[in-house]
Amino acid sequence: MQIDELKRLIDVASGRRKTDLVIKDAEIVNVLTEEFIKADIAICGDKIAGIGSYDGIKEINANGLYAVPGLIDGHTHLEMSMLSVTEFARLVVPKGNTSVVADPHEIANVLGKDGIRVLIEEAKTTPLKVFFEVPSCVPSSPLETSGAIITAEDVAEILEWDNVIGLAEVMNYPGVINGDEEVLKKIVVAREKGKIVDGHCPMLSGKDLNAYISAGIGSDHENTSENEAMEKLRLGMRVMIREGSVARNLKSLLNLAKRGYRWCMLVTDGDRTVRDLIEQGYLDYVYRRAVEEGVDPIKALQMCTINPAEYFGINAGLIAPGRFADVVLLRDLERFEVARVIANGEPVGEIKRTYSYPEFVKRSVKLKKLITPEDIKIEGKGVARIIKVIEGEIVTGEEREYVEGVDVERDILKIVVVERHKATGNIGKAYIKGFGLKRGAIASSIAHDAHNIVAVGVSDEDICKAVNRIAELQGGIVVVDGVVKAELQLDIAGLMSEERAEVVAEKLDKIHEEIKKLGCKLKSPILALSFMALPVIPKLKVTDLGLVDVEEFKVMDVFVS
Amino acid sequence: MQIDELKRLIDVASGRRKTDLVIKDAEIVNVLTEEFIKADIAICGDKIAGIGSYDGIKEINANGLYAVPGLIDGHTHLEMSMLSVTEFARLVVPKGNTSVVADPHEIANVLGKDGIRVLIEEAKTTPLKVFFEVPSCVPSSPLETSGAIITAEDVAEILEWDNVIGLAEVMNYPGVINGDEEVLKKIVVAREKGKIVDGHCPMLSGKDLNAYISAGIGSDHENTSENEAMEKLRLGMRVMIREGSVARNLKSLLNLAKRGYRWCMLVTDGDRTVRDLIEQGYLDYVYRRAVEEGVDPIKALQMCTINPAEYFGINAGLIAPGRFADVVLLRDLERFEVARVIANGEPVGEIKRTYSYPEFVKRSVKLKKLITPEDIKIEGKGVARIIKVIEGEIVTGEEREYVEGVDVERDILKIVVVERHKATGNIGKAYIKGFGLKRGAIASSIAHDAHNIVAVGVSDEDICKAVNRIAELQGGIVVVDGVVKAELQLDIAGLMSEERAEVVAEKLDKIHEEIKKLGCKLKSPILALSFMALPVIPKLKVTDLGLVDVEEFKVMDVFVS
Repeated sequence: MQIDELKRLIDVASGRRKTDLVIKDAEIVNVLTEEFIKADIAICGDKIAGIGSYDGIKEINANGLYAVPGLIDGHTHLEMSMLSVTEFARLVVPKGNTSVVADPHEIANVLGKDGIRVLIEEAKTTPLKVFFEVPSCVPSSPLETSGAIITAEDVAEILEWDNVIGLAEVMNYPGVINGDEEVLKKIVVAREKGKIVDGHCPMLSGKDLNAYISAGIGSDHENTSENEAMEKLRLGMRVMIREGSVARNLKSLLNLAKRGYRWCMLVTDGDRTVRDLIEQGYLDYVYRRAVEEGVDPIKALQMCTINPAEYFGINAGLIAPGRFADVVLLRDLERFEVARVIANGEPVGEIKRTYSYPEFVKRSVKLKKLITPEDIKIEGKGVARIIKVIEGEIVTGEEREYVEGVDVERDILKIVVVERHKATGNIGKAYIKGFGLKRGAIASSIAHDAHNIVAVGVSDEDICKAVNRIAELQGGIVVVDGVVKAELQLDIAGLMSEERAEVVAEKLDKIHEEIKKLGCKLKSPILALSFMALPVIPKLKVTDLGLVDVEEFKVMDVFVS
Repeated sequence: MQIDELKRLIDVASGRRKTDLVIKDAEIVNVLTEEFIKADIAICGDKIAGIGSYDGIKEINANGLYAVPGLIDGHTHLEMSMLSVTEFARLVVPKGNTSVVADPHEIANVLGKDGIRVLIEEAKTTPLKVFFEVPSCVPSSPLETSGAIITAEDVAEILEWDNVIGLAEVMNYPGVINGDEEVLKKIVVAREKGKIVDGHCPMLSGKDLNAYISAGIGSDHENTSENEAMEKLRLGMRVMIREGSVARNLKSLLNLAKRGYRWCMLVTDGDRTVRDLIEQGYLDYVYRRAVEEGVDPIKALQMCTINPAEYFGINAGLIAPGRFADVVLLRDLERFEVARVIANGEPVGEIKRTYSYPEFVKRSVKLKKLITPEDIKIEGKGVARIIKVIEGEIVTGEEREYVEGVDVERDILKIVVVERHKATGNIGKAYIKGFGLKRGAIASSIAHDAHNIVAVGVSDEDICKAVNRIAELQGGIVVVDGVVKAELQLDIAGLMSEERAEVVAEKLDKIHEEIKKLGCKLKSPILALSFMALPVIPKLKVTDLGLVDVEEFKVMDVFVS
């Protein structure tokens, strides 16, 4: 902040200078004192100057509408929306979500530091305030080929960039607990710089949990039971209560939300589908859900405003002088019915993309060559280790059956992962049960965490068509049944679309429809497929290096010898 | 924190490594969840490693004693104790006060940056954690000669030193409200570095208050009424509830304390006399007072632990892994009866000074020459502007009477301020009412804020004797009645004693006894005297430059022309 800017703010606050914008006659919800206060809100530049009786050159008459601080999502992944940051902002800001803390883990796995920088730069062109954290686990495993590596030295560098406030969820909790040097280096460098270190430690308890927290890890968003969450809270962790489109933890953690601990927050974890974003909302939806479940609206608001603001040191989350002028005017407090949003001191109008992606972002799919059925043939036959998809879970099972090839009767399909970052030509192949396809193939360049191209299908020809089409599109999701039946281009790092959210939602609907026609019974087949290549979640997964037994932590033959 | 140190901490927390010290079987007061939890506390180095079931090489059996976090005083001035930092620590740490946030405003006025560094260095040799803030107003006025100036550039430099966490109370609130460039520079540089900016704004309200807060000033400790405090809290300030030996605000702000706002703290403001420190305690006393007044003990604890820890970003204030092992074992929670204190992971034993002051600290009194009655003669006679002391206040009044010289009958005494930093030979002289001395003189090198030598007395000879004795002692408080009747040497910057606290307390008792014998009726004559030279508090004061009318902001003649 410049001195001149500060002087102007003080001049406005003191009443010496008439400001550009005043919100008149609002019913301000004070999330700190838990009071309702009728007053004007004077805004100067991107900050609130004063609360009281003020006049402005432009005035918005709130006429008794509630004024609440813009919501702050303490944990998200922008890429998961499959939207550009601008489109994401266009959906969420007008619903009252003015700040997010984002872990650009996905784009970092594809494009490394340069990818993170792209998101930071695009975010700056939107009214959404995005506070970034440096992904702590890129790559997540040596058992696959990712597009980039983020070392401890990189972490140190990125932490100095604009709008970077911490080290993102340290998923490698075994690494922390066992004192892994590289993991600890990243934590120590973040702490030395006075930055936040966020956690991720599902089911961790007792001494292991103590060990993890003792490293200075401040939060966890993976709690699924009250006992789990309370143990972490007691040990000094911030508990982020996640309520997404898929992972829904609010009901299990409802008592924490109701008690309104100052160290609890509501978060999305980025887990909101485009369709849900359009139709239901973002963190505003989570707030509404909490209130529906009986959480006091002011306590629910605190968990979306002042609580994350305090933890992350964000100068917002409270309607008070000197803070960012992120103000949401509501017709109804409990239903969070938005009348108007002011973000960074400006009434939010149309949000349009002005940012242009650098060329490398749209050239992230690099195959050695287009693939042919020959490339994905699985030689041999015998008792195979078969990946078993479990509906609604990202863990898989292992089944062992005699296999000679794809067998639709027994729902034994082929799954392949084609390396797409370094044109190595690596292709991992395996058999999988659970998708239920009767014909055709599905492929996706969203494939956690390395985001190679993953495809599942009945015929090798269709699998190749789907994979090659993704290469042509420079990323996407493709459904093939002889010919391409549906597709969504994701040419921003192979992860995100440049199209409008509504178009993306329609195309995703079409994709799901076509997948259903192929015989698939899974509720979220694209999501399921995208986790089949993640070699850090048990039990059997497949990467570009082959079939991985996660518990054994190694690549295995498809056939039991 | 080094990686090796962190590894050791994790090893202990995980149970892989037996640690040096475990507190067994404590009733831990969790100030976050407001629960009592029976468990062991494993300590490794200066940190807490784990809470649960642990064994140590050395064990302290708490046997069900309460374990609470060490108390954190969010606002103090170490120099006000008149003790060395070590002696201060020796008094307060064993009572459970393990951290303070200190504004070294007094020593900065005498010795500037070097003085601040001395306190920082001494503090490091004690078990007390002292977090320093850079004094924001040195000197406090151009109408006096101080020992040093702290510029905005100095502020920027000092903010980078070890253990310096913010800019101390911005007392120049008119400067902020009116956009004074130098004041704003200091604020901006602190904010740019992500540091705290503390406030000081008694009675400020409405638009002026909005203006002050809009500058990013985070706290105030000067509230004397509930309305005043609530207005500040609503506008996003942390409210520090001060309860000192003299300034007592707890009763007026009791409702805030009872409601337990997370943005409220209990503080001392350094306003605890040595005698009170010895007999009643420090912040532990304030805690006890709050509980006596009906504040819930856990809420009172929060205001002395987690609340300041969160505001200042201090890694303590909660008994949890990774935090400083500052643990107080209590026999009784409400009365805060201390059984044992662990600070920085070590049971607190004898605290002895190991620090040696650099020579310049003990050579801070520099007179041009010893003074003689000739030097302090007030020429002329007529209607004089007379300073009127008001019992228990630091503001003064003005009286106008015909004066020919000191007149004991009418309680018209002489007051002088002798410059002692730069040997300028400046001496300010005036008449004063209210001390009630019938003979003799009192002098002190504690004289806010410039800390020149201030003396009040009946006879010029006695005044000179008192002042010259202080020069000889290199600082102190001296009572003269023909001869020196009582004295306390304060040779650390002319502000603090090297002696043990008990000796200082005795000498101060003796000084007060002797002052009473001289006929003084004031309750706290030394305190009163020390504020007579403060030219920022109305109405009439005297500095080395002469009689100052604070409201007129200028030096005046003693006689009305």
